[in-house]
Amino acid sequence: MNRVLVIGGCGFIGSHIVDSLLARGCRVRVLDMKNEVFRAPLSEVDYVTGSFGSEAVLRQALQGVDAVVHTASTTVPSTSNLDPVADIQGNLIATVRLLKEMRQAGVRKMVFLSSGGTVYGIPETEIVEETHPLAPISSYGIVKVAVEHYLHMERQLHGLDYVVLRAANPYGPRQGYNGVQGIIGNFLWKIAHGEQIEIWGDGSIVRDFIYVQDLAELCAIAVQMPIQGCFNVGSGKGSSVNEIVEAIRVLTKRTIKPVYRPGRSFDVPRIVLDISRIKAVGWAPRTELIDGMRQSWDWINQHRAIDDIA
Amino acid sequence: MNRVLVIGGCGFIGSHIVDSLLARGCRVRVLDMKNEVFRAPLSEVDYVTGSFGSEAVLRQALQGVDAVVHTASTTVPSTSNLDPVADIQGNLIATVRLLKEMRQAGVRKMVFLSSGGTVYGIPETEIVEETHPLAPISSYGIVKVAVEHYLHMERQLHGLDYVVLRAANPYGPRQGYNGVQGIIGNFLWKIAHGEQIEIWGDGSIVRDFIYVQDLAELCAIAVQMPIQGCFNVGSGKGSSVNEIVEAIRVLTKRTIKPVYRPGRSFDVPRIVLDISRIKAVGWAPRTELIDGMRQSWDWINQHRAIDDIA
Repeated sequence: MNRVLVIGGCGFIGSHIVDSLLARGCRVRVLDMKNEVFRAPLSEVDYVTGSFGSEAVLRQALQGVDAVVHTASTTVPSTSNLDPVADIQGNLIATVRLLKEMRQAGVRKMVFLSSGGTVYGIPETEIVEETHPLAPISSYGIVKVAVEHYLHMERQLHGLDYVVLRAANPYGPRQGYNGVQGIIGNFLWKIAHGEQIEIWGDGSIVRDFIYVQDLAELCAIAVQMPIQGCFNVGSGKGSSVNEIVEAIRVLTKRTIKPVYRPGRSFDVPRIVLDISRIKAVGWAPRTELIDGMRQSWDWINQHRAIDDIA
Repeated sequence: MNRVLVIGGCGFIGSHIVDSLLARGCRVRVLDMKNEVFRAPLSEVDYVTGSFGSEAVLRQALQGVDAVVHTASTTVPSTSNLDPVADIQGNLIATVRLLKEMRQAGVRKMVFLSSGGTVYGIPETEIVEETHPLAPISSYGIVKVAVEHYLHMERQLHGLDYVVLRAANPYGPRQGYNGVQGIIGNFLWKIAHGEQIEIWGDGSIVRDFIYVQDLAELCAIAVQMPIQGCFNVGSGKGSSVNEIVEAIRVLTKRTIKPVYRPGRSFDVPRIVLDISRIKAVGWAPRTELIDGMRQSWDWINQHRAIDDIA
């Protein structure tokens, strides 16, 4: 499993997965629509530019590959409900085609980045295990579940070896700041630029945040580990949006006055992942929230000049 | 809830739902691609001919309607895996568009016919409750689950009132006999015509059979009942394929020599539904298997002349 294709490898999480794979001695190919936003192409990486929805592009990208790490999504949870049909076409159908192309190319290992924050819907328990019912209330989550099911079917019928990682909310260096995803990156970026931060609801909603390099390291390990099935990947701890804001106050030493907006119907009130299953196979998050936030803050301040990019 | 649109109302199950709705005094509109195979159009029914994948057709069909019973599918379990992309496009995307059109037309009640035989995948228990994990191994089942999730989301975000009926294997008069679905109808038809029946595997696989008129009656009741969520609908009893063949021997008094074909990878070995939840709200199947099979046999013998239709 040394030759790995990372679909979405120029994105926030994907770029860190590339780093982790390279550090482990893998040969890495990236399939993405465009270059990385925050750094120049890496000389060690073979880039294929194009849509993973194109079968011709997939065929090219899969040549000579042992495994695929699939992190691409054309949507984010907060926008997927605006056009569920586009979400289904861009992500579900594209991934079903990818599975067929992988079968035909003989690539029998996949690590798929699913969404611990959306597949369970409104949790029935304080801490959510992988066996919790799947009742998503966003198209994003519904499509992630459907992809998980097609992976399961592909294993049953055609022997695909796969790992689904249901990730909590990742944050860290290179996180975009366009406001649709990732409150830690978004808030820190705005504060660094003297802008006001906005909170949907009263700030009481609780999320599980995972430092992006910890998540990326697991993706790289999972390519080679003899594990199968679904795993929650988070910190196992909950933090409210208000607690994040308070941590940012301490970290940045700035005066912060958030603007509170009406809550959004697709935001679940609380989601914290039980990470016992992944811990049992030898992985645990290494970065404490405040340390990861400090890394993000330092990175943002080193990149403050990049104001003209999304 | 007196004006009901039945999508797929000219199909096997749909035609019986139409009968049940008419018997309960409902005004019925049917949206289907073509006429019923086994009888002439009913004078009491308003037929709209077209694809439920067309938004223009849907808009026309939804005018003046209080509720929708959605029984249409462009695929069956045994063929859906041949082209999962077509399955997603023809059923999932079409149903997501239907939900949007219903919202815009103010139609806030739906009864959706899901699939108790495929959504659970390979059961972990002898009798399968609605809370059993959903792990389908056919595209048909995956798409049914995804539709269920979009219904759940539509209720959470836009107040849709819906009932999902996860039906076991329906059989009875007007069942097609083209061999892709429904062993009872298929076997009886072949025997009536002196043809050999084929069994996939050794005949040990166990299914839960539900008489189509019992299922249709529930669909009609569900339009008006104040119930929500998912319900298994079956007999609650398992019968092996070999037991069905034996019952057919007794019923038809014919010598039957089945041809045994290799088993199919997407056939789960056993699935029997727990129907406690639907019983608790007042419905139970009324027709014993042997009685329902006799009805089917009588109907086939009355229709033996219809040899030129699929």
